Amino acid sequence: MTVEANGRTADFDIDPMFLDRWSPRAFSGEAMPHELLMSLFEAARWAPSAFNGQPWRFVYAHAGTTDWDRLMEVLIPYNQAWVKHASVLMFVISDRFRRSEGREPEPLYSHSFDTGAAWACLALQAHRAGWAAHGMSGFDLARAHEVLGVPEAEYRVEAAIAVGRPVDAAILDEPYRSREKPSSRKPVSSFAFEGAFRV
Amino acid sequence: MTVEANGRTADFDIDPMFLDRWSPRAFSGEAMPHELLMSLFEAARWAPSAFNGQPWRFVYAHAGTTDWDRLMEVLIPYNQAWVKHASVLMFVISDRFRRSEGREPEPLYSHSFDTGAAWACLALQAHRAGWAAHGMSGFDLARAHEVLGVPEAEYRVEAAIAVGRPVDAAILDEPYRSREKPSSRKPVSSFAFEGAFRV
Repeated sequence: MTVEANGRTADFDIDPMFLDRWSPRAFSGEAMPHELLMSLFEAARWAPSAFNGQPWRFVYAHAGTTDWDRLMEVLIPYNQAWVKHASVLMFVISDRFRRSEGREPEPLYSHSFDTGAAWACLALQAHRAGWAAHGMSGFDLARAHEVLGVPEAEYRVEAAIAVGRPVDAAILDEPYRSREKPSSRKPVSSFAFEGAFRV
Repeated sequence: MTVEANGRTADFDIDPMFLDRWSPRAFSGEAMPHELLMSLFEAARWAPSAFNGQPWRFVYAHAGTTDWDRLMEVLIPYNQAWVKHASVLMFVISDRFRRSEGREPEPLYSHSFDTGAAWACLALQAHRAGWAAHGMSGFDLARAHEVLGVPEAEYRVEAAIAVGRPVDAAILDEPYRSREKPSSRKPVSSFAFEGAFRV
């Protein structure tokens, strides 16, 4: 059974939210209510993680604040040019260590992976609320650690995330306007294999 | 507004699926229909990733097959003892490189993070279908690469995942039976910070 939504076609029967969620760049720029922003983190909160270690952290800023200006300058210019339309800019960070009371911290193998799971929950909750979260790897990593105050030996800045309420692509300049549509994907057969890995 | 579900309380208004999804160990052991298994990968397929690179891969085996026996022996005994109740055992793997036609592969900063996002989508879709996916870091990493045929220089085995249909905890022996309940989480205030990172 196929499922169609958002100009995308799924080859197998899934909840349409996975097709409906996407990463727009055209946002309204309106102020994001505190409770709504917290609900995004709340969804991330309940993600699964190894040893229930919850290694994810977030640093955020609302548009129009001095924190926003500081965080914006970590992005590459290509992203600054459209993130200016967003309501909240955040960075998602992982804790490289497993920390338990009364024990020496140990390297945590799954810190990035677990934090990616939390990010997916945040993005889906944003979508459920009629907003959207757009992840970015286009930022200056060294500057991110410095500006956010994240000690690199212990924590890893994983991604930047712009959050906003989607509006019509017409507000965007090129080349962003032409790119304002949901992306496609490789088929399941190209990445899921029975019994043994295939390159 | 708080949301209660599955013995958990969310401090902010989220879709209850994030509370309802959890990681049980008591499974029916019934055969998992092919289309249903594919729908889990389909949900993973639509996860966001840097450059839409989709660096996730999965290797899976159905219970009762010779592949199942091979994959099971990669797990630590603690996990083997309950995964025997599952219907499908899989490993999720990330591609360490960004590969584009006509270009040399480049290290991909977000390969584990992006693959964690795909894993969260898979787990949520399993839940939506009335099944459950339980992630594990308790496996022999070197053996996983060897048994699955995953070249370690290019790909990283991120986690093992047991998939099954949840049943009453009574089928489990101790210590698993007493542990068969949804885990709690740290509050949002402990991991989401405005403006600057806090340890």
